[in-house]
Amino acid sequence: MSSEEPFGSCPAPVRERELVLLGHGSGGVLTSRLLADVFLPAFTNPILARLDDQARLELQGARIAFTTDSYVVTPLFFPGGDIGRLAVNGTINDLAMGGARPMYLSVGFILEEGLPLEDLKRVVASMRDAAVEAGVTIVTGDTKVVGRGSADRLFVNTSGLGLVPEGVELSARRVRPGDVVLASGSIGDHGMAIMAARQSLGLEGDLRSDTAPLHGLVEALLAACPQAHALRDPTRGGVNATLHEIAAASGVGIEIAEDAVPVRDAVRGACEILGLDPLSVANEGKLVAFVPEPQAEAALAALRAHPLGREAVRLGATTTEHPGRVLVRTVLGSRRVLERPHGELLPRIC
Amino acid sequence: MSSEEPFGSCPAPVRERELVLLGHGSGGVLTSRLLADVFLPAFTNPILARLDDQARLELQGARIAFTTDSYVVTPLFFPGGDIGRLAVNGTINDLAMGGARPMYLSVGFILEEGLPLEDLKRVVASMRDAAVEAGVTIVTGDTKVVGRGSADRLFVNTSGLGLVPEGVELSARRVRPGDVVLASGSIGDHGMAIMAARQSLGLEGDLRSDTAPLHGLVEALLAACPQAHALRDPTRGGVNATLHEIAAASGVGIEIAEDAVPVRDAVRGACEILGLDPLSVANEGKLVAFVPEPQAEAALAALRAHPLGREAVRLGATTTEHPGRVLVRTVLGSRRVLERPHGELLPRIC
Repeated sequence: MSSEEPFGSCPAPVRERELVLLGHGSGGVLTSRLLADVFLPAFTNPILARLDDQARLELQGARIAFTTDSYVVTPLFFPGGDIGRLAVNGTINDLAMGGARPMYLSVGFILEEGLPLEDLKRVVASMRDAAVEAGVTIVTGDTKVVGRGSADRLFVNTSGLGLVPEGVELSARRVRPGDVVLASGSIGDHGMAIMAARQSLGLEGDLRSDTAPLHGLVEALLAACPQAHALRDPTRGGVNATLHEIAAASGVGIEIAEDAVPVRDAVRGACEILGLDPLSVANEGKLVAFVPEPQAEAALAALRAHPLGREAVRLGATTTEHPGRVLVRTVLGSRRVLERPHGELLPRIC
Repeated sequence: MSSEEPFGSCPAPVRERELVLLGHGSGGVLTSRLLADVFLPAFTNPILARLDDQARLELQGARIAFTTDSYVVTPLFFPGGDIGRLAVNGTINDLAMGGARPMYLSVGFILEEGLPLEDLKRVVASMRDAAVEAGVTIVTGDTKVVGRGSADRLFVNTSGLGLVPEGVELSARRVRPGDVVLASGSIGDHGMAIMAARQSLGLEGDLRSDTAPLHGLVEALLAACPQAHALRDPTRGGVNATLHEIAAASGVGIEIAEDAVPVRDAVRGACEILGLDPLSVANEGKLVAFVPEPQAEAALAALRAHPLGREAVRLGATTTEHPGRVLVRTVLGSRRVLERPHGELLPRIC
């Protein structure tokens, strides 16, 4: 039996909604849509719904943080790090942004048939070194191998467990109007290092990934500013995506000063050549902090006293104005709306 | 300068050692070698070195089990289940084999650009259903997208957390000579279902994956037999790989009776056509238990009283003879050595 609908009564399916796009992995608008349309409705529960970088659980009285990330970066080895170091530090950082002390990691490899074993050994050695440096232990793992052409050399998932100290309660939802927004240092380093390594663009300057474990920096920050509201490491989608995420979760507006944004010359030069906004470029060793105004100076001083926060700055503040939106005050004094990254600036950045 | 070695003084590098092979993911000999040569030397620590299916940790007094698995099965959907159900049940089972009550899962997707969103939604719905049925909560997740041709549609990693009840201490290292080896039901179902679904071999019969969460069955077993020594779910490499793994870890020999091995007719028929040994074919809803002889009957009765263990059998026993080896007593009364699976019987089985 025919069941044709009158023409126009049923909206034609939008092509870009039917297939997974690179932008679904960007950390931007399409990623949020995937979360809102597919994952949250299915997996709905109060822990997941908090949408922080890590789940916080109580298990027999222990305050545990739990997080997972898959790493698909290409190339596997790049100036400043490799996929192994990234996978250890990245998951440590997701725990640290909840104030947790990272303790244990799992490692799951997906290997493409034909990968040189030497490459695997290099990645594994790098993970070992990063774990030792950060004081975490890799306690369980898994390896799958897929045929040639079914994966691109090596993917790795790390999941992590940490302990959240008594009294620490960091969450996007705690951000309030009037909070000060701090950044722990220069932005865009990781993303531009990957882009330069991948595209042989002949970019000048010293472009290196900033991959680093941030739990020590967080500990120093929380010691000086125990009432900090929220922390994020601005990875995919950069500081831009992070600010939008916090604005959406907390319902505040955010305003930052363009001339406060710390960008290294090499990164700024490369961004200008490529027409990119450093605010939207990924970082792997930086954090953005939302702290109450009265504690902002103490927090900033604590960041600057730590080796990973020497170039920390006051980026801006949250406001009751334009809730959910992010504005940039330009050097000339005007304000422009910061558009959230939509598509995929640079696939497979982490 | 030429530096030729006299012919024969330096063994030529073995080709198969230089590249990752499908067999490295088989659960057999090559997987063990990868573990022994690459992962264990780098990540060495007492928790990992136990080589059970899950790490057991103490966090602020809580007895926690932690495990990870990536799933790369093809096809994504098959009779009896799909990659989503497999990913939830498989990780639950790795926790359950340590006697843990599964509590929380993380989910990490790697998606290939161009995957139909409908397929992702089906997988997600299946994970939701499996989690609800098993009483676990998916609390954190991550999604990466890679370009067309850089992955095969959809891979998923699930990591899991569970609580280990006081007094439960299951480990391959606790297995002793004289233990009875039990199997909870028919073997080879999952592997042959995947093979039939993939290869369109026109195999007759009702081949369906046995994917199921086993923690309830384990709970029933431990209630009847609290002194059980070790449990394993015989996935990649089947019961064969599991028995070899336990024999190697505990230093016992194992002898099983060929006519005790429960194999469904459809599975046996398909195995005969393809020249496969059901003992080496993967399972996703069965367990093998090593229990002290005095408690064996009680353990068997407890398994049989549970819906997932109705066809449980006594498979054989451990012995001081031929340590590290597995023998099969044939129907005719002779004994043959069971060779450990070497290469890859069937890639991407889970």
